[in-house]
Amino acid sequence: MNNADTAAFVTPLDRELEARLLAVIDAKAKPLGALGRIEALAVQIGLITQSLQPDLGRPALLVFAGDHGIVAEGVTAYPSEVSGLIAQMVLDGKAGANIAAKAAGARVFLVDAGLQTPLEPHPALIAKSVRCATRNSLHESAMTESEYLGAFQAGHGVATSLKSEGFGILALGEIGIGNTSAAALVASCVTGLPLPKLVGPGAGAPPGGLSHKCEVLSRARARVPAAAGIAAMREFGGFEMAMMMGAMFGGANARQIVIVDGFIATAAACAAVAIEPNIRDYFLFAHLSPEAGHAALLDWLQAKPLLDLSMRLGEGTGAALAIPLVRMAEGLLTTMAFLPGAHPS
Amino acid sequence: MNNADTAAFVTPLDRELEARLLAVIDAKAKPLGALGRIEALAVQIGLITQSLQPDLGRPALLVFAGDHGIVAEGVTAYPSEVSGLIAQMVLDGKAGANIAAKAAGARVFLVDAGLQTPLEPHPALIAKSVRCATRNSLHESAMTESEYLGAFQAGHGVATSLKSEGFGILALGEIGIGNTSAAALVASCVTGLPLPKLVGPGAGAPPGGLSHKCEVLSRARARVPAAAGIAAMREFGGFEMAMMMGAMFGGANARQIVIVDGFIATAAACAAVAIEPNIRDYFLFAHLSPEAGHAALLDWLQAKPLLDLSMRLGEGTGAALAIPLVRMAEGLLTTMAFLPGAHPS
Repeated sequence: MNNADTAAFVTPLDRELEARLLAVIDAKAKPLGALGRIEALAVQIGLITQSLQPDLGRPALLVFAGDHGIVAEGVTAYPSEVSGLIAQMVLDGKAGANIAAKAAGARVFLVDAGLQTPLEPHPALIAKSVRCATRNSLHESAMTESEYLGAFQAGHGVATSLKSEGFGILALGEIGIGNTSAAALVASCVTGLPLPKLVGPGAGAPPGGLSHKCEVLSRARARVPAAAGIAAMREFGGFEMAMMMGAMFGGANARQIVIVDGFIATAAACAAVAIEPNIRDYFLFAHLSPEAGHAALLDWLQAKPLLDLSMRLGEGTGAALAIPLVRMAEGLLTTMAFLPGAHPS
Repeated sequence: MNNADTAAFVTPLDRELEARLLAVIDAKAKPLGALGRIEALAVQIGLITQSLQPDLGRPALLVFAGDHGIVAEGVTAYPSEVSGLIAQMVLDGKAGANIAAKAAGARVFLVDAGLQTPLEPHPALIAKSVRCATRNSLHESAMTESEYLGAFQAGHGVATSLKSEGFGILALGEIGIGNTSAAALVASCVTGLPLPKLVGPGAGAPPGGLSHKCEVLSRARARVPAAAGIAAMREFGGFEMAMMMGAMFGGANARQIVIVDGFIATAAACAAVAIEPNIRDYFLFAHLSPEAGHAALLDWLQAKPLLDLSMRLGEGTGAALAIPLVRMAEGLLTTMAFLPGAHPS
């Protein structure tokens, strides 16, 4: 299975417009550089959309949910049932994802990528479950080739179809008991960073402590020492991660603004970059998580997140809060006045 | 003139509700502390509104504009006319304030506190001009006692009347060529921090360089070495600063959420705290400005701003971008589900 088989490719970000974007921004009614990181964001948005006057349309918060076979090894504080409970709270409009999205003016979609407990139909539910959970990656591949491909392609399709509904901003988050384990394994494979540097408590330390979690993950990792790229995701990832990665590619291909949330989403972004380095320039990184290893993954990606609010909830809460910054950057290009006499576009 | 004369007093923030707020937040459907600084914000909002279920209503971005007599001393890169041009851009919906407010879902009001050039009537204009500019504080008091009082009371009244219109969140920013000079002088008087530590380029270094600006301000400061509290604002402040300070007191008294922007707004906040220490607990600090001295003022206030985006535009752009964080904190208290079985309120 190579990239071409899986549609995991992106054209390099065309930087020809960069000088004109910078000239436009410098001619706006403000001291040079006075909008700081919003200016850099405006350049990136202009390049992604290939426009001096981008119209980003509506923002969506996509929360991908899935369960994990490796939970059987006692690596989590909570049982897999909790993933479904939280996913239902998102559909009920009462989860962290919802309060963040409401604050940011975004619409929430819950994507069932592979939850143990099926959810009732709901207008905010995008039902794409591949399987009721991944297999236990301590003993076997978390997903088969066709399961991986199904997850990836479903995510790609979700992004594309949201684009056709006018959503030009995709904030990507997740739910999944056990997914800090999956994320640590995938990230370690694709970045080469040592596993212990990437293992943290997630939603809470497991009964046997972090040392038990780390020991289990090390044994799992030793099962396929050479796993890299797509194989890393297939051997150790979650369906929510693989589907989110598909949405990352779908979003980049559709010139949507893709906002990456915390540790798990960033691990998926690392896998995406390992598979297709061109995708790096399409990513916006929203928020620095205190979860162990997030800072190391951001360093590996040479990314500096926009926000640092000590949040570690997941559900795309950090990504959602970056949406207003993206909207301001859009307004800088489209709405803000020029200095008298200046109008380079 | 003492505090009682000027209505510059605030009841101490009543912390009796704090334990119950913390219990509510800890019982929400998330790992303990997982919403980080949003949780601390929710506690503060609950205490300010004295409610476990605050209803903050609508957010307003108030941009106070005024001109400065000390501009005659060559301490700015731009002439005073630019203040009026930018203020008009705000009314036209095309300034930095507008793109930030739109991104944050806030309504913008431009308050003319003392601009050199009068503005035409406009639905977004709150016309409260005290005088066409402050006096030149190198040679005389920037404002008379009655001018100061007029500015303060007008600001207090603006906050109160917005409260009656349903605005429970006030983001406070400013426009005023010369106001980094005024802010440095006022802040140095009320905090005791040395003036050179507080003098930066503002919108741009003046023709004679920063050393000239610093030298002029040192001479002005030496005119009234003992100026403190209200006297500091009267001797060296701007009408936009004095009126914003009035709005800070009005907002605190009306239990609105008062969001403080960058260097100039923080200098006004320092003066407010010097006059009435009780007001400190009512302030939210939005954004760290790279302007020299802002970090030192925040340290003096023992405040850690929520955002750090390297913006130094003023106009309340930083304060506006903190509004979504406030809204999320409100949603944490009012909307987010409790853990199964937990419901302490």
